[in-house]
Amino acid sequence: MSAITDLTLTGIADAIAGKRISSREATEACLARIGAWQPHLNAFIAIEPETALAGADAADAALASGQNFGPLHGVPLAHKDMFYDAGHISTCGSKIRRDFAPDTTSTALARIKTAGTVRLGTLHMVEFAYGPTGHNAHFGDCHNPWNVAHVPGGSSSGSGAAVAARLTFAALGSDTGGSVRMPAHFCGTTGLKTTVGRVSRAGAMPLSHSLDTIGFLTRTAEDAALLLALTAGADDADPTTLGGPVPDYMAATRGTLAGLTIGIPSAFYVEDIDGETAQALDATIATLTRVGAKVITITLPDQMQLSAASQTLLAVEAAAIHLPWLKDRPDDYSSLVRARLENGLAYSGVTYEQALRWRGPALQAHLAAVAGVDAILAPVCPTPAPTLADTDVGGAPDAEAAIQVITRFTRPVNYLGLPSLVVPTGRTASGLPIGMQFIGRPFAEDVLLRIGADFQRNTDFHLAAPELPA
Amino acid sequence: MSAITDLTLTGIADAIAGKRISSREATEACLARIGAWQPHLNAFIAIEPETALAGADAADAALASGQNFGPLHGVPLAHKDMFYDAGHISTCGSKIRRDFAPDTTSTALARIKTAGTVRLGTLHMVEFAYGPTGHNAHFGDCHNPWNVAHVPGGSSSGSGAAVAARLTFAALGSDTGGSVRMPAHFCGTTGLKTTVGRVSRAGAMPLSHSLDTIGFLTRTAEDAALLLALTAGADDADPTTLGGPVPDYMAATRGTLAGLTIGIPSAFYVEDIDGETAQALDATIATLTRVGAKVITITLPDQMQLSAASQTLLAVEAAAIHLPWLKDRPDDYSSLVRARLENGLAYSGVTYEQALRWRGPALQAHLAAVAGVDAILAPVCPTPAPTLADTDVGGAPDAEAAIQVITRFTRPVNYLGLPSLVVPTGRTASGLPIGMQFIGRPFAEDVLLRIGADFQRNTDFHLAAPELPA
Repeated sequence: MSAITDLTLTGIADAIAGKRISSREATEACLARIGAWQPHLNAFIAIEPETALAGADAADAALASGQNFGPLHGVPLAHKDMFYDAGHISTCGSKIRRDFAPDTTSTALARIKTAGTVRLGTLHMVEFAYGPTGHNAHFGDCHNPWNVAHVPGGSSSGSGAAVAARLTFAALGSDTGGSVRMPAHFCGTTGLKTTVGRVSRAGAMPLSHSLDTIGFLTRTAEDAALLLALTAGADDADPTTLGGPVPDYMAATRGTLAGLTIGIPSAFYVEDIDGETAQALDATIATLTRVGAKVITITLPDQMQLSAASQTLLAVEAAAIHLPWLKDRPDDYSSLVRARLENGLAYSGVTYEQALRWRGPALQAHLAAVAGVDAILAPVCPTPAPTLADTDVGGAPDAEAAIQVITRFTRPVNYLGLPSLVVPTGRTASGLPIGMQFIGRPFAEDVLLRIGADFQRNTDFHLAAPELPA
Repeated sequence: MSAITDLTLTGIADAIAGKRISSREATEACLARIGAWQPHLNAFIAIEPETALAGADAADAALASGQNFGPLHGVPLAHKDMFYDAGHISTCGSKIRRDFAPDTTSTALARIKTAGTVRLGTLHMVEFAYGPTGHNAHFGDCHNPWNVAHVPGGSSSGSGAAVAARLTFAALGSDTGGSVRMPAHFCGTTGLKTTVGRVSRAGAMPLSHSLDTIGFLTRTAEDAALLLALTAGADDADPTTLGGPVPDYMAATRGTLAGLTIGIPSAFYVEDIDGETAQALDATIATLTRVGAKVITITLPDQMQLSAASQTLLAVEAAAIHLPWLKDRPDDYSSLVRARLENGLAYSGVTYEQALRWRGPALQAHLAAVAGVDAILAPVCPTPAPTLADTDVGGAPDAEAAIQVITRFTRPVNYLGLPSLVVPTGRTASGLPIGMQFIGRPFAEDVLLRIGADFQRNTDFHLAAPELPA
């Protein structure tokens, strides 16, 4: 079993296409592993063995008759439960949508499905994607596979936990304030947050129209490149998507770090971080330097202002989206998510308008500060995954403050709309993963994937797998 | 004197270019008429005879030596005092900017100046362009040249009054909630409000980033076409401007109404309008039909919702722009404008975000409702110009409500970002002008100019001039 689930996304796709492993074997391996891990992680909201195996058999039959659906033919996958899949329940991690079966399919998911995948079920997420830890009052909390007393990170909690535990070969996630990067960091997976406009958001549950981005939780940068290649580009259903040609992301992963310049912020991202995170940062810098990258110190504009503006956009837009339910079904929210949403009602129009309008100038200032730098290296969070108990703030008055601390290194990137790739870069003495994010220029996911892939050729943190709890 | 100032903008430009009238003669004629009318109208904030005559002489000398600066060579003009002209005071109708001399020139004004114009001075406007009547506590009220007890309309009050009284051959205005169309209607001039993105707003005082548009107060549709041709198109300094080719607006004015379809709204714009306005509407429909247009009744989406959303955007964005002065110099605003600006502080972020986000769907719904229609015909206001006394609401609690009534037929157009052309269509028994607006499709100013020009070939309302009060 482990031999199959140890494979990367590209690895299993190659194996199935080459008929070395059948889709049924791959699907059964995943289902067996899900069965073993799910009681410990609660990473899935729905597990669908029968439809999965039927899909696998159909894929195998098609392949036997010479028909290959696409680059992910027969590969079993599960995704964050907010990518609408027509006719299937998409709970969005909520009580309110517990029975919601959309009649359209998310563009990102449709493009992946068209590549031939088999649906395993749906993955755990924070209620309406509004939280960075992985708590969920309706479906139970999700747990970190490296230590189940710790959070997996959110809001793509199930995506991080399931990819780390090798229950799915990859998973779609979304990142509005860090929701792909936090689980990638806490769970030790690769995580790509895309540029606003790179991947269609049509049919994915909205949280913030300004900040929402699609992302991928994967084993490797190469796997993220494959999913990005499948999903990137213009979509009539999402007018914010960028037209024009899309880089060759798979080719980008064959590039090396030699000749690239990586900027290390002189402040903010290197302040008030714990000792082991600081060590991992130093070790990552050492690796980058060793393999030929130039590492320089850069001075960025005030990141706290970006974080505050990001928070304003998120709070107001989330409250606006949820306004009808806040009026009609307030008791169907958890106390934490309702408190966060109601907080968004208190912002003034002027404050929101200023946060929105400052975005362009702030991006210009950022780009000026990173002139000559291919990517910024920074921690994802000041600490590794905290425990579920320590972060169970519920609707307490200080809930918002607690969330702010966790997301302080991720929010500025959302405000600027930038891409960011998280790769595993170390582990704590207690065994928790530590990831770092490479923050790129707008639409320069290809550069980030080049960095991540070469970093992973020179390190083995991404190869480690958690052990099933006793 | 009257022979010269009776000319249209294209007429005086042709006469000067053909050396039948000198720029000095034209400028002296304007200055003489300004001298006679200014005590009655207060249409100018600054009158600059010496620089005007020096400019005229320079234009004449250049022409004598074979040098023609452009299509408006030697034509004396004045504009609303919010189009920055480097080194010249631009009061924006305010005490706060009474001494403000910008170091840049508005793109729209620069493009007109490049065509060879002579600067006569600056025109009256409502304080910071925030009001539809023409009252101004700092510079005195502006008066309607047809009856000085009545308002000229605002905020481009001086532009409407001065063009109607033939003190300038044309004038730049701006339209955020009706500020070009209201003075055109009340003063009996042609007025073109452009599509958002058609004419650069760079260097024009901002009131609302979402709604602000540049416009022109002129004698004729042909004159408006000339100014639009000079100013339309992309501008690096205003990223909201549309790139690509610009229609031939002058050629458009040679088209006829034959074959065009004009839609008359079945509701809202035809409700609660006074009797003489209703008569003018009927007479306009009769004229359109007589000259070959097809006139049909159309059903538009709820216009009150558009008006409310427009008001939200305006209130919040104006308050955001003025926030520093509201904090530091609150007493330097008039009570009316300060009350309006402070009202904008009370809107919630959610309300603003919803108004902003609904704009696309609302435009889609509008375009569906006007499928097959070349333009909508509608009154500009339910009544002709009210008196200054009746609309002197100051900072009274019901000031905002009073303003809403006046602008109910103009605001929806601003929300949708559409172009609208006002032409004179009649007069009341007491002699006040009545204009109607033709509301077009996005970027279809050429169609509106074609309609307006042919309408003016078949009517003579635009030829009437007010008489100097005794």
